[in-house]
Amino acid sequence: MEDLQAYVRQIAEDARQAALKLSIASGARRDAALLSAAEAIRSDADAIAAANQADVLAAKDAGLSAAMIDRLTLTDKRIEAMATALESIARQPDPVGKSIAAYNRPNGLRVEKRRVPLGVVAIIYESRPNVTADAAGLCIKSGNAVILRGGKEALQSNLAIARCLSKGLSQADLPDNVITMIDRTEHEIVPALAQAEGLIDLIIPRGGESLIRAVVQAATIPVIKHYAGNCHIYVHADADLTKAERIILNAKCQRPGVCNAVETLLIDAAIAEEFLPLIAKRLIDAGVELRGCEKSCKIVPEMKPASQQDWFTEYLALILAVKVVNSLDEAIEHINTYGSHHTDAIITENISAADRFVSLVDSSSVMVNASTRFSDGGEYGLGAEVGISTDKLHARGPMGAEDLTTYKWIVTGNGHVRE
Amino acid sequence: MEDLQAYVRQIAEDARQAALKLSIASGARRDAALLSAAEAIRSDADAIAAANQADVLAAKDAGLSAAMIDRLTLTDKRIEAMATALESIARQPDPVGKSIAAYNRPNGLRVEKRRVPLGVVAIIYESRPNVTADAAGLCIKSGNAVILRGGKEALQSNLAIARCLSKGLSQADLPDNVITMIDRTEHEIVPALAQAEGLIDLIIPRGGESLIRAVVQAATIPVIKHYAGNCHIYVHADADLTKAERIILNAKCQRPGVCNAVETLLIDAAIAEEFLPLIAKRLIDAGVELRGCEKSCKIVPEMKPASQQDWFTEYLALILAVKVVNSLDEAIEHINTYGSHHTDAIITENISAADRFVSLVDSSSVMVNASTRFSDGGEYGLGAEVGISTDKLHARGPMGAEDLTTYKWIVTGNGHVRE
Repeated sequence: MEDLQAYVRQIAEDARQAALKLSIASGARRDAALLSAAEAIRSDADAIAAANQADVLAAKDAGLSAAMIDRLTLTDKRIEAMATALESIARQPDPVGKSIAAYNRPNGLRVEKRRVPLGVVAIIYESRPNVTADAAGLCIKSGNAVILRGGKEALQSNLAIARCLSKGLSQADLPDNVITMIDRTEHEIVPALAQAEGLIDLIIPRGGESLIRAVVQAATIPVIKHYAGNCHIYVHADADLTKAERIILNAKCQRPGVCNAVETLLIDAAIAEEFLPLIAKRLIDAGVELRGCEKSCKIVPEMKPASQQDWFTEYLALILAVKVVNSLDEAIEHINTYGSHHTDAIITENISAADRFVSLVDSSSVMVNASTRFSDGGEYGLGAEVGISTDKLHARGPMGAEDLTTYKWIVTGNGHVRE
Repeated sequence: MEDLQAYVRQIAEDARQAALKLSIASGARRDAALLSAAEAIRSDADAIAAANQADVLAAKDAGLSAAMIDRLTLTDKRIEAMATALESIARQPDPVGKSIAAYNRPNGLRVEKRRVPLGVVAIIYESRPNVTADAAGLCIKSGNAVILRGGKEALQSNLAIARCLSKGLSQADLPDNVITMIDRTEHEIVPALAQAEGLIDLIIPRGGESLIRAVVQAATIPVIKHYAGNCHIYVHADADLTKAERIILNAKCQRPGVCNAVETLLIDAAIAEEFLPLIAKRLIDAGVELRGCEKSCKIVPEMKPASQQDWFTEYLALILAVKVVNSLDEAIEHINTYGSHHTDAIITENISAADRFVSLVDSSSVMVNASTRFSDGGEYGLGAEVGISTDKLHARGPMGAEDLTTYKWIVTGNGHVRE
């Protein structure tokens, strides 16, 4: 552990020096680094694919699950998507130096609140190697040095991708230590990073709940996280049922294994008799297992009865909990009680109901007549995302480059003193 | 402890219900509550003064320090200042509902990032009763319920002030539980508050470093804090020495016991021989004890030699550490190494030097040709402050009403699904 702490201290100090240089580099230079890195990913695509092939073979030998191997695998399309994400990040407006507020005080003092990089950001993630490019790209864009620690099963892939980002930095004459890809595989590196007070400004764990809890438990530096995505769709009495059907099927079935897939369906009692049999059939046909409240099971006897635990569960699978609620307020109460403050949607044509839902549901994203699957940095136009925060402090929901900045008060006088 | 946890759960749940109601109340109604509370403070001034008198007498009997008794004492002027602060908060723009960004995506989806209250905020503070009015006022403004826990020596004063705020809330027909003034005096209430996960959204400790460390150690909910204000003034080679003299005297002597008073003076070697004897004389005449580096002591033999510890120290007294530095970059390096990231100033007429200082000094407030004493919510035009953050996440520097909000992504479609 002492050895690891010394290692973390060394890489973090090197990163901080690099971050200082990056923080005063122009936005054009940071964007040039991103564009060169995108080019390097394209020209090194074969090398990345070969490194990934080695990781995947080893993972199969080690008997990793098919889902894990899917997340680990880089197809040509996924490699090209990393390059396009970097280009898209480069095209975003520069968050660094942006004035949040600037005004003169009555005494003539000039006060400005200006965005500046956080400094050094650490990102802990699991098997998806594309996180390497997205996270490093967003950190470069926002003027931060980044320390990356991916899953050990993805190490060769991650190193190959990090080399492309380093090429981009070097072509833009920016310091190499802006990116540190940790190649040590000891587990204890995670608490050592999470306790690097004064050295690392923020740690973002991405992955399963047990990884995130481990980081939170160990951390003495700020953490931004999301534990779970227990997302809801509430079909209001005044819903357009055609929209409701399309949205529910999309939110449950398009990609069930991700955090913004829907896990509980709330149906207003006023339309339950009409809509529930219809949507249940479509969902069952699509292979979805339904677990209903007592009323739901009466209307659709094919449903299994839901237990109390179901209302809390993020299935990440083709399972959906279903509950009939008597009112908008009961739906809101259910979501705030059992939900995970991630993404929740209402389907309604009634503007007052939509407003009340939007105001009172305490979640990072609240949707009206749209699929919960849109809760994503790319879909929100952030170019990419470094994570989705279900915390309320600092950043909430999908986090882009601007969320990796803080601000500084800049006060300019002409010999001003306080009376 | 269990009894305390149950007590905290109860008040936090009541506060959350009140917060929900407050969050959908109009800004006009929240402002009306603030204005009525200001009026109540004026009409109840005698009752507040009598309650304070009782606290002060008990504090004197208990042998509290003169500085503590000064902080505890409410003069007529201080009572009136609480009323004016509430009026000033009411005049601020409403942070709730403010759009941070709003745009249409190419697929027609409407995305908005809108400010919403945090929910329930807990504030732990020491003997200054005016914090009760300022903190509660900023929480009402920002749509949050607040749980206040002041020093037990100020309890009667705090209860009298809280009654005025309750009158304001009731006149605006807002729920009384928006403000909870804790009247239980057990020490263990602090960790119980700091561990109220899912019940309290943010805890802000204000006061001495030991109080703040205790909260941080215990906390499992987000904390915003500042440990210390080890503020610097750097007199650059191109400084206007008349401005420098005026600013240094103000920053050290106007109110030495506060966090934005200057604690270390850095003087560029190019002007040290000329300026140091002059400013040293003025400071010594004003009763300031000087502790200098080797070079400083050579130039001004009246100085005591400074130890390494002096560079880290927040004196909060008429003592000033003095160091001669060879360059702008040495000054920046010293500040980033020994400072507390609170407030640091450069005195210079050279615009490039000012820019470099502003960019590279990693502090919440950076001043150019102005006294560090301006680092304050009132001086920055925030109406009042709920604290000064030396953290980088969420809020940095003086925190006003807007810093007590988070945001929510509101996504509106017309049956949109993700492809």
